[in-house]
Amino acid sequence: MADCFITRVSAIDKRYSLPPGAGSDAVHSNPEYSLAVTRLETGGPLAGTGITLTLGRGNRLVCDAIEILARPLIGREIEALMAEFGRVLRQLADDPAMRWLGPHKGVVHLALASITNACFDLWAKSRGVPLWKLLLDLSPDELVALLDLSYVEDVLTPEQAREIFAERWAGRTERESILKQGYPGYDTSVGWMAYEDQKVCELTKAALAKGFTAFKLKVGSPDHGRDLRRAQLLRECAGDRATLMFDANQQWNLFAATEMGRELAALRPLWIEEPTHPDDVLGHVKLTRELAPVKLAAGEHMPNRVVFKNFIEAGAIHFVQADAVRLAGISEFLTVSLLATRFGLPLVPHVGDMGQLHQHLVLFNRVALGQEIHFLEHIPHLRQHFLFPVEVEGGVYRTPQEPGASTDLVDLRPSA
Amino acid sequence: MADCFITRVSAIDKRYSLPPGAGSDAVHSNPEYSLAVTRLETGGPLAGTGITLTLGRGNRLVCDAIEILARPLIGREIEALMAEFGRVLRQLADDPAMRWLGPHKGVVHLALASITNACFDLWAKSRGVPLWKLLLDLSPDELVALLDLSYVEDVLTPEQAREIFAERWAGRTERESILKQGYPGYDTSVGWMAYEDQKVCELTKAALAKGFTAFKLKVGSPDHGRDLRRAQLLRECAGDRATLMFDANQQWNLFAATEMGRELAALRPLWIEEPTHPDDVLGHVKLTRELAPVKLAAGEHMPNRVVFKNFIEAGAIHFVQADAVRLAGISEFLTVSLLATRFGLPLVPHVGDMGQLHQHLVLFNRVALGQEIHFLEHIPHLRQHFLFPVEVEGGVYRTPQEPGASTDLVDLRPSA
Repeated sequence: MADCFITRVSAIDKRYSLPPGAGSDAVHSNPEYSLAVTRLETGGPLAGTGITLTLGRGNRLVCDAIEILARPLIGREIEALMAEFGRVLRQLADDPAMRWLGPHKGVVHLALASITNACFDLWAKSRGVPLWKLLLDLSPDELVALLDLSYVEDVLTPEQAREIFAERWAGRTERESILKQGYPGYDTSVGWMAYEDQKVCELTKAALAKGFTAFKLKVGSPDHGRDLRRAQLLRECAGDRATLMFDANQQWNLFAATEMGRELAALRPLWIEEPTHPDDVLGHVKLTRELAPVKLAAGEHMPNRVVFKNFIEAGAIHFVQADAVRLAGISEFLTVSLLATRFGLPLVPHVGDMGQLHQHLVLFNRVALGQEIHFLEHIPHLRQHFLFPVEVEGGVYRTPQEPGASTDLVDLRPSA
Repeated sequence: MADCFITRVSAIDKRYSLPPGAGSDAVHSNPEYSLAVTRLETGGPLAGTGITLTLGRGNRLVCDAIEILARPLIGREIEALMAEFGRVLRQLADDPAMRWLGPHKGVVHLALASITNACFDLWAKSRGVPLWKLLLDLSPDELVALLDLSYVEDVLTPEQAREIFAERWAGRTERESILKQGYPGYDTSVGWMAYEDQKVCELTKAALAKGFTAFKLKVGSPDHGRDLRRAQLLRECAGDRATLMFDANQQWNLFAATEMGRELAALRPLWIEEPTHPDDVLGHVKLTRELAPVKLAAGEHMPNRVVFKNFIEAGAIHFVQADAVRLAGISEFLTVSLLATRFGLPLVPHVGDMGQLHQHLVLFNRVALGQEIHFLEHIPHLRQHFLFPVEVEGGVYRTPQEPGASTDLVDLRPSA
């Protein structure tokens, strides 16, 4: 490989309108899916593209934060940078002036997600391999060097992280079968909040016919009866053997979550998602007790590894829905994967990236960490905008083969 | 009172350099104190001024967020607005597009702080009274209408909030003596991280001579020996009877916090402040056990009432350092005051506002809520920039008498 230097950093504010009703949930009535894109140019044909998601107005704030935070990357050679990325990430996150705006949360952390993901994309392209292969080819020491484990050392030291990677090396060959099989998907787009009953049923039947076996429904309506009716409808349309998940998008307080969780339990959901405010660790612990044996999932609004450490250690959630475009990118996602693995919890990502990045990351989590195979959320609404959109066939993600992290956009095609 | 309509909203990015070493701590090496200012104009002589603090680069992001989030206030009459402010605040905080950038944390929540504080300032000015008097003149029902208690109802319903205000009405007359006495202050500016030993000692002796009896020292240096030497020095210079507080500004992980907390205990601090990451609820619980009887204080980086609910309910802190320029302004500060009161914890604010707002709020907490008198942090570095800077005499804050929230800036003098 020739040396590959970052010569220019830019941020691009991309906004995409959705079909009517698509993306709607209990708290986001009419979202405009927006990507705050980091572009790392190299003076040559290679460019790194990183993304994070926002929902419209405000995407510009993340772009402005990217332009401030990414400056120290200019002039860095990509291999040298990634050999110490954990240390660099901590420095970027702890910029003495910008740290106050978080720390490690909100606009500045979303910006770091986009920046970090651009670095990994450029790194994988520079090695000519897809992200999943880049990660699987790294040694435990190289993997640990990608991570900032500060503030989680009480449950995960660098040495313990190295041991987890090393211990699980043995069963890799067998687990690599997932690369050929492809990773199962589940369909979130059948049950948006604004969809009429008939549409939910039609979409569910169409998704079943395509091979999906698991479906998510948005709940958290002010009309509890509507939620229950739609949940019943989904069970009827999807059939007894289908896997269902109900997602309240933080709308409920603890009283409503308890009441609705008990009602919805009759429909045997695999999980209830974001039942209440994402900062409420103790609230989730209370809910796990009140609602047992119903299981809880959350994570799409948990900003960093410290928050995940708390939820995981407290037993506040059963499914860890880390998102590499909410956390500080692929690096902090891997840290949360290690935390989940250490505590024996399944990591089932939320896909703010529409699955583009996470299709790589679930493969890594399966092969390298031995995580059980669950399924990866599938949301098709932005696929025409990606240069290499995810390919889901028979309800299964096909393993991507193009170099990079699959985050390039059609209208930001590499100039060369 | 004549009707007072908000006719225009603007955000102003003000940055102030500090004297060498001032403001430095374990994570902020060379801060540029910056205010993201919200101006509410009325078409008449009255204007509301709200502030939040940031540390330089990035202040522009908060200003941009203010301009987006505050738009719904244009055209609102101030009395009508404040009669339902809790509901309005929830709407602003849950803007469907901007909420994703938090929720309720980071840049967007700092913007809400500034906006909220401008509304209270305008309200107090329109009634011709200082903020503390405005708040003390409100009935329990009017006070509760200022609050957004969503997601904390499991420990504080609106009815319970009303009862707390009503129950404590009885002893008010006696507690109003604080208005004449003034509220005690403590001095943070003797012990910035970059100050040499001799300067710390000189400043401490000068502050003692002025009447201060309590002093804060920045710790969290990479050189633990330096921290211990400076702490010992401060005890020697301030004397056996002085009250000392040590502030690590989140620098330590749990191992370092345990080790250093035990060492520093010998110097009898009133509290150790921000011993580790502000998101680490369980980490703080562990530290309270490891370090008992040493007490912990935190809050300046806790963004919202849900996070405070967790720390308070878990017994993770002993002193609640809420800050009305980090939380969603005066409104959410009052919510946290109620939470602290309900759980019997002292609220001793962090003063990102340099005490301008909080001098009013501690008076309210004392008189209306019956909070014990502690002391209010004093940081003098921006005083020349405020139109009516805090007046501290004999180590005691003099009760402000000018209408409003004391947040007007010299170079943003009302145009009339």
